[in-house]
Amino acid sequence: MRIPLDPQSRTPLYRQIEDWFRENIHTGGLPPDVKIPSTRDLADELGVSRITVKNAYANLESDGLIYTREGSGTFVASLFPEDKTPSTAVPANWPFWQLEATEEIQEPVEVTPAAPIRDDLISFIGVGDPRAFPLKDFTHTIRDVLESDGTTALEYGGLHAGYYPLRKTISQILASQGIQSRPEEVLITAGSQQGLSLVCQTLLKPGDVVIVEKPTYNFALELFRALRLKIIGIPVDRQGMQVEQLEPVLQQYHPRMIYSIPVFQNPGGMCLSAPRRRLLLELASCYNVPILEDDFVSDLRFEGRALPAIKSLDKNGQVIYIGTFSKMLMPGLRIGYLLARGPIFERLVRQKWVQDLATSNLMQRVLDRYVTVGRYQAHLRRSTRLYRKRRDAMVAALRRYLPPSVSFDVPHGGLFLWLRLPEDMSCLDLLPLAMQNGVEFSPGTRYFPDPEEGKPNLRLNFATHTPQEIEEGIRRLAVTLSKIRE
Amino acid sequence: MRIPLDPQSRTPLYRQIEDWFRENIHTGGLPPDVKIPSTRDLADELGVSRITVKNAYANLESDGLIYTREGSGTFVASLFPEDKTPSTAVPANWPFWQLEATEEIQEPVEVTPAAPIRDDLISFIGVGDPRAFPLKDFTHTIRDVLESDGTTALEYGGLHAGYYPLRKTISQILASQGIQSRPEEVLITAGSQQGLSLVCQTLLKPGDVVIVEKPTYNFALELFRALRLKIIGIPVDRQGMQVEQLEPVLQQYHPRMIYSIPVFQNPGGMCLSAPRRRLLLELASCYNVPILEDDFVSDLRFEGRALPAIKSLDKNGQVIYIGTFSKMLMPGLRIGYLLARGPIFERLVRQKWVQDLATSNLMQRVLDRYVTVGRYQAHLRRSTRLYRKRRDAMVAALRRYLPPSVSFDVPHGGLFLWLRLPEDMSCLDLLPLAMQNGVEFSPGTRYFPDPEEGKPNLRLNFATHTPQEIEEGIRRLAVTLSKIRE
Repeated sequence: MRIPLDPQSRTPLYRQIEDWFRENIHTGGLPPDVKIPSTRDLADELGVSRITVKNAYANLESDGLIYTREGSGTFVASLFPEDKTPSTAVPANWPFWQLEATEEIQEPVEVTPAAPIRDDLISFIGVGDPRAFPLKDFTHTIRDVLESDGTTALEYGGLHAGYYPLRKTISQILASQGIQSRPEEVLITAGSQQGLSLVCQTLLKPGDVVIVEKPTYNFALELFRALRLKIIGIPVDRQGMQVEQLEPVLQQYHPRMIYSIPVFQNPGGMCLSAPRRRLLLELASCYNVPILEDDFVSDLRFEGRALPAIKSLDKNGQVIYIGTFSKMLMPGLRIGYLLARGPIFERLVRQKWVQDLATSNLMQRVLDRYVTVGRYQAHLRRSTRLYRKRRDAMVAALRRYLPPSVSFDVPHGGLFLWLRLPEDMSCLDLLPLAMQNGVEFSPGTRYFPDPEEGKPNLRLNFATHTPQEIEEGIRRLAVTLSKIRE
Repeated sequence: MRIPLDPQSRTPLYRQIEDWFRENIHTGGLPPDVKIPSTRDLADELGVSRITVKNAYANLESDGLIYTREGSGTFVASLFPEDKTPSTAVPANWPFWQLEATEEIQEPVEVTPAAPIRDDLISFIGVGDPRAFPLKDFTHTIRDVLESDGTTALEYGGLHAGYYPLRKTISQILASQGIQSRPEEVLITAGSQQGLSLVCQTLLKPGDVVIVEKPTYNFALELFRALRLKIIGIPVDRQGMQVEQLEPVLQQYHPRMIYSIPVFQNPGGMCLSAPRRRLLLELASCYNVPILEDDFVSDLRFEGRALPAIKSLDKNGQVIYIGTFSKMLMPGLRIGYLLARGPIFERLVRQKWVQDLATSNLMQRVLDRYVTVGRYQAHLRRSTRLYRKRRDAMVAALRRYLPPSVSFDVPHGGLFLWLRLPEDMSCLDLLPLAMQNGVEFSPGTRYFPDPEEGKPNLRLNFATHTPQEIEEGIRRLAVTLSKIRE
C-alpha cells in the first residue's frame, strides 16, 4: 500500500489513511474481497504507529467498508449487490494534451453490426482452424526446450536480430523455396505485423505515399493510416496487381514504398503472374522505390506451380521480404521474420531493438526446435490436405447455393475466398442480416484504401470450419442474399 | 524450389535450372548437405519434362556441386573445407533509397572495448540472476495452462489491450500498491520497452522535446534518439530529479513529455522524494505536459518506506504509468503493461494493435496463472532477500577495496549501484583495462543525453552474482583503478 501521507497536513494521519481507503474502495481501486494489510504491517510500512492504523480501520469497519475474518485477516467489503465494481469517476476535464490526442484520432474503418449474435453463428472470419493446431507436439516441444536449455531460454537471449539458430533455420527454409539468404539477413519479429510496422517506421514518415494492391490486407491499411501515410491503390485482376498501370502512378506520386502480397493474396486469393513480378521489380528499381513483399501463406498451396518470390529475383537489395509462422501454425505464437539486405537491415534491427528489445526467447527456441525436428513440415502437409478439402467444400456450396450474380475465382491456396456481389449491393447492408441468419463474413470495405469501393465485396475464410459447417454457413448466406434482393 | 524459369529465354530450360542451382550453391543460399528434390518432383513442380531436370542435375553432379546417395536422394555437396559457407556476393551499388537510409543512421552511443574477454570474466552488466529464475514453477504453469486452456491459449486471443484476466490481475496488484485503476485502463505490452515506445510514438513526433532525469535508463535514451526527439536532462541528486530546476526548462523548451523513474532509479538507484513528486505533478499539469512514470522495479525493496507512485497522486489522467514483470521474473518473458486513463488510452491500444496485433497469448495466460496462484509473490519475497544480501556484499566490497575518491550511495532496493569516479577519470579508459583484469561494468556514458557527462561514472548490477563473485569482481575493479591512477 503506497498511501500518500502528508505529515505537515492539518488532517490527522489516521484520517488520511482512512480517507485514502474510503476513496479507493468507493472508486473500485480496491475491489471487494481484496485482502488489506494487517494493522501491524501497514503501520510498519507507512512508518506510523499501530494505533493510527487501528483508528483508521475501526472507522472503515463501522462504515461497512471493510470486514475482518477471524484468523484470516481484513478484507474490502462488497458495497454493491452482485459485486458490481463501479467505474472510476471520470474527471470533468482531461488535460489539454489528452484532448489534442482525441482530435488526432483517425477512426479505424471498422463496421461492426449491432445484430444479436446467435449461439450457432458460423463465422467465416479468422485464419486457420484452432482444432488443427498441433497442441500436443507443441507442448512437448516446450517441455523439451525448457529441459535442455533451462533458464537460458528465459533470459533476453538472441538480442538484436533474434535467436541465431532460428535465423539459420529460416534461411534454410527460404533456400528450399528458392530464396537465397544468409542467416545474417534474417530478423525475427513479433509476427509479420511487426515486420510491416518496422519497415514502415524505418522507411517512411507521415505524408509519404505508399502503393498497395486494391484490395489488400486490412491490418496493413490500418497500420498505414495510423502512420498517416497517403495510400494509393492499384487495382488487381486474376493475375494480381495490374502492374501495367504502375508507371504513371510512380511518376505522379513519387511513392516511398510498394506493398504487395504476390501469393494467394489477402483478400483476393490470386497470385501475381511471373511477367508482372519481373515488371514490378524493374519499375521499382528504375524509380528507386523499395518493395515490401508480404508472403504470408505461400506454403499453403493446393495445386499448381509455385512462382519464384519477387525477393528471389532481386539481385541488389530492392525487396524486403516478410514471412510468418503464425497463419499456418498458431497465431498466438507471435513469431514472424523479415529478410533484407544492405544498409537497411541494420536500421531495421535497431528499430526492433528500441521498440521492444527482443521477441520472446522461449518462443523462438520452441519454434526452432519444432521446425528442425520436422514437425512443422508434417503439420504443413496435414494442414494443406485439410484446408484443400475445405476450400473444395466452400466452392461446391457457393456454386450450389449462390445466384450467378455473385461471382468468385477459385484460389489455389491460402485461407481466403473473395466474393463479388452485384454492383448495387452493399456488404454493409448484408452483414447485419447475415448475422441474424447465423453467418458472419468480413466486409469488403475493410480491404480498400477507400472503403466505399469494397461495398460489393466480402471475404470468406474457408479454413476454420468443417465441410458440413461450411455448407450450412453458405446456405445461410444464400438465404440472406435472397431476402435482401426481394 | 521456386526457380524462376523464363520459357521465352534463349537459354534452354535445363540450363536455367542448372544455373540457378549453381548460383545458389556458390553463394550459400543452398548450404551443404541440404536435400534437393528428386528429378521427378522438381519436374512436376516446375511443369517441365523430367529429362530437363535430369540434364541439369547431371551437369551439376559432374561439377561436384551435388551428390546422390543411393536410396536417400540428392544433396548439395560441401564445396569448402570446414563447411564454411561463403557470404553472399554484395552488389556494388545498393539502391539509392538504401543509401539514403545509411545517411540517416544515428549511431547508437555504445562503447564496446576491444579487450580480450577472459573465461572467468565477472560481468556487472545485466538484470536479475538467471539462477534464481523459478524455472520449475514456470514450466509447471505452462503445462497447467496448456492442459486447461488447450488451443485457445495459442489463438490470437486477448486482442487489443490484452488478455482480460491478466489486466484484472495487474489492476489488483497495483491496488495493493496504492495505485487505483480499472482493468480497462491496463494495456499489456511486450515488455516495458514496448510501453515506452508506444507512448512516444503516440504522443511525440520528430523534433519534439522530452525531459529526462540525468542520468537515466539507456534504452529509453536510445529510443528517444531513434525517434529523433530532442532530449533535455534535469540533473538528479539523492532525492531524485531536481524538480526545482524544471520550471524554466518547461517555459523555454515546451517539452511534450517528462520521463521519470521515481523508484530505485536506473542507473542512479535513488528515489524521488515525496515533495518532488507532488511538485513534478503540479508543474506537469500547469504546463500541460504528460508524465511517463517508469516503475520498473519498485517491488524489489530492501528497506525503508514506499512512497506513493506519482500515478497514485494523479487525479486527472496526467500520468502514464509503465510496469513490467521482466526484471523480477524472467526477461525473456517479454510481458509488461502500461496504465493510462482518458482519451489517450484508446490511442495507445490502437498503436499497439497496428504494431504487432497482440502480445503472446500463451505467455499472458501463463503469467496470469503464475501470479494468481501466489507463485509470483513468493518469488518476489525470495528474490528480495537474495538481492538484499548481494547489495550488502557489494557495498561491503566497495568500502573495503575502493579508494575514498570513488563514491556512491547505497540503494534501498532495485538492481543497480552507481559509482562516481574522480572527475578527471573516464570510465571509457577504465573499461578495457577492467575487462583485461576480468571485470565488466556498464559505462556511465550510456546514461546521459550527452555521453561526455557520464565519463566519471559507471553502473554496477549487484543482483546477478553471488557475494563471493561480487567481492572478487570489486577487488579486480579496485586493482584496475589503482593501475590507471599510477
